[in-house]
Amino acid sequence: MPHLNDVDETFVATLHDLLPDAAFRDIAGYIEEPRGSWSGKAGVVVAPGSTAEVSAVMQAANAARVAVIPYGGGTGLVGGQILQDGPLPLILSMERMTRIRHIDAFENVLIAEAGTIVEQLHQAAEAIDRLFPLSFAAQGSARIGGSLGTNAGGLNVLRYGNTRDLCLGLEVVMADGRVMNTLKRLRKDNTGYDLRNLMIGSEGTLGVITAAALKLFPRPAARATALMVVPSPQAALELLAKTRDHAGESISAFELISGMGLQFLAKELPDIRRPFDPAPDWMVLTELGLATGGQPEAMLEAIFEEAFEAGLVSDGIIAQNATQAAELWTVRETIPEANRLTGAISSHDISVPITSLPAFIEEGRQILAGMGPYRLNCFGHLGDGNMHYNVFPPEGHSKAEYAAHKAPVMEAIHDLVAAYGGSISAEHGIGRLKAADLARYGDPVKLELMRGIKDLFDPNGILNPGAVLL
Amino acid sequence: MPHLNDVDETFVATLHDLLPDAAFRDIAGYIEEPRGSWSGKAGVVVAPGSTAEVSAVMQAANAARVAVIPYGGGTGLVGGQILQDGPLPLILSMERMTRIRHIDAFENVLIAEAGTIVEQLHQAAEAIDRLFPLSFAAQGSARIGGSLGTNAGGLNVLRYGNTRDLCLGLEVVMADGRVMNTLKRLRKDNTGYDLRNLMIGSEGTLGVITAAALKLFPRPAARATALMVVPSPQAALELLAKTRDHAGESISAFELISGMGLQFLAKELPDIRRPFDPAPDWMVLTELGLATGGQPEAMLEAIFEEAFEAGLVSDGIIAQNATQAAELWTVRETIPEANRLTGAISSHDISVPITSLPAFIEEGRQILAGMGPYRLNCFGHLGDGNMHYNVFPPEGHSKAEYAAHKAPVMEAIHDLVAAYGGSISAEHGIGRLKAADLARYGDPVKLELMRGIKDLFDPNGILNPGAVLL
Repeated sequence: MPHLNDVDETFVATLHDLLPDAAFRDIAGYIEEPRGSWSGKAGVVVAPGSTAEVSAVMQAANAARVAVIPYGGGTGLVGGQILQDGPLPLILSMERMTRIRHIDAFENVLIAEAGTIVEQLHQAAEAIDRLFPLSFAAQGSARIGGSLGTNAGGLNVLRYGNTRDLCLGLEVVMADGRVMNTLKRLRKDNTGYDLRNLMIGSEGTLGVITAAALKLFPRPAARATALMVVPSPQAALELLAKTRDHAGESISAFELISGMGLQFLAKELPDIRRPFDPAPDWMVLTELGLATGGQPEAMLEAIFEEAFEAGLVSDGIIAQNATQAAELWTVRETIPEANRLTGAISSHDISVPITSLPAFIEEGRQILAGMGPYRLNCFGHLGDGNMHYNVFPPEGHSKAEYAAHKAPVMEAIHDLVAAYGGSISAEHGIGRLKAADLARYGDPVKLELMRGIKDLFDPNGILNPGAVLL
Repeated sequence: MPHLNDVDETFVATLHDLLPDAAFRDIAGYIEEPRGSWSGKAGVVVAPGSTAEVSAVMQAANAARVAVIPYGGGTGLVGGQILQDGPLPLILSMERMTRIRHIDAFENVLIAEAGTIVEQLHQAAEAIDRLFPLSFAAQGSARIGGSLGTNAGGLNVLRYGNTRDLCLGLEVVMADGRVMNTLKRLRKDNTGYDLRNLMIGSEGTLGVITAAALKLFPRPAARATALMVVPSPQAALELLAKTRDHAGESISAFELISGMGLQFLAKELPDIRRPFDPAPDWMVLTELGLATGGQPEAMLEAIFEEAFEAGLVSDGIIAQNATQAAELWTVRETIPEANRLTGAISSHDISVPITSLPAFIEEGRQILAGMGPYRLNCFGHLGDGNMHYNVFPPEGHSKAEYAAHKAPVMEAIHDLVAAYGGSISAEHGIGRLKAADLARYGDPVKLELMRGIKDLFDPNGILNPGAVLL
């Protein structure tokens, strides 16, 4: 790794020449990850107000060989925003760049600066009767720059794709301060190599995204939500196929929920209204969003009846109004918090080919049963083949008691993922948590090319060192 | 540009050691572009039968410093498949790698080797009641490897995206023969830099795609097609918005057709049944594909009635059966052939932000009117903001008489595209035809990074030299 210098007084003085006082921030708020899993350090935190200021900061940092951590909402789950080792870095927060530069309902496009919070994008789209579909638990504090940097996934990927699929163009400040302006609002543009997608998901290691042109969508005219009890993950997949037969591409979400998730909710967040008691082993939360004239409740009823006949579902709730739908969604969305309160030994954000998912889930269960008395909460984005496969200590025990189990559990699961041709990071990214795993499980030719690209884009290695690539 | 050697007898002898006799092809069929616009040269043409053979060929070519032109169906429109200058190259045809390695209706995925013809992918998908949506005029001879290499567009981009959006994973042989195996069937995989999209659209200059995992889709249960007469491109866009209000994301195609296109058809291909005579100035061809229970004809009727009330359409035909729908599509699909027979001075595959399209079309018309007595056929993928903006000599004159007009006409149009923040190549790619335009109009930072990536991936410069980057 190239030699880097600590942020020192001289460097901070340089920054004061480049930026107004309003750009300087207290370090304290930026070196603790919200769940408390990661804490780090920084020499200075600045929040530039414009692309030109970002460019000036990058030029200065590159000249001084100072590490730069591009910083969005700080909500990443793999430590990409926290530097623990090495010289004191500069944290480059995008929080003051929150302007929506352009929005057009006719064109279904929006240009936002990188610091815009995801939920503000939802509101801006809604105000012109459009949908910006990116949706995940942290959307109230996550910023679009970080979402692009990590190619965030979430609840609507099945229908609308990852963050990558929502982006038409980018403005990026490179490591040396040059600005790459490819902020086009075009649906089709085949002019040269796809550097947009190369930047998206590079987790702040190749450049700093300062603005993005994003796709908007028609708001579905009618939505409906159901929670159905299924006998197994295999039945859940067959229910997905049946739902597709009826709804085509109009399935907005198809989420698997395990009984263990409901048990954690009952214990840790008893005020959340639980739909079934006792908890069934497996449930599916489905949302349909249809165009004008569609009858999504009637469609869900027809799907339920057919699936019941076929033995794919045994019980179910079709929300009769928005309040009921919100209650069902609350169950799904608070499971991560219940997990956090329960305390996992190890959490895995994995994907495998969808057909293999039931076999993977069962084989993982058997392997874990042979390793210890763990509890397993496997849930998530079934329609994408993406499970959060999280391993917990037995009831009455804490994760601290099982700290020594973390490494072997993670290795066993990741080995199994690799055997199934899956991904060890379906939607959270690599960050610092999984950089060693990527080196172990990644394709060696791809890894070598990635290293070459890193050295080409950031020859001094100042951008988010230690993230993605060791 | 690095020094390259001619294919010579020694090199051909090396290839004979590596490949069976069946892999060697006559040169003649590979150095003429189908429209007759480009002709080139080659020292040898080989068609390996496996990824291992492709790897062996690339190792040998890299060691010998011989240029390699990866070759699909040869249908590219920008000369990417034809080398005119420089040392005699090897043409690497994928035509013997046509195996579908995997197909799964449950998972909606298909893995095909690069030489598979696009239409064969349609048939394979249809056989399991699924849709592979990539669709364009050359689909009967274009191969999926070339379609990925050029990120081909076509008629269904509005709904399903470009070829890039249909790809989940790639197997790629690099310039030195190493195989990058990222042929995953995953919907979500956030493990490191996105080299898949970097390879897609790189036009054979960064590696040789040997196989791809591709997305399949549900087949729309009911389709309907209409051709509507609109007073202007602006009205066509408002019709698009109205169609979206009804059909949401279920619009499979939304194509603008100009009266000039129908006039060319009448003259050059009089057997094609024309829907309106005399030809109106502007028409829109729309196709809707709805899920089970949808009534697309009724939806098109409702859209037509509302649009008629609003003055957005004045006449129209809603196809009453598949034969009528096919007739309407034939009109759209034979316009490129009528253009070829008429003979264009200059053809432009451009896109601009959709909102600006009517202003762009009109401003372009005015600029051209000031330059000469040209005829203009502007048509194409309105829903994507992508127009084929083609300039023809006046009636009774040939393109040969106007050869000197080509450069100034192209420059005027491309300057206008740049002024509108558009793209000089929306879907055809850069190839050799537009390499100088890319150097002129591209973002300079992006171009410099592209050059760096080219040198990193292909240090000897053997892969498709002169394409994309000068």
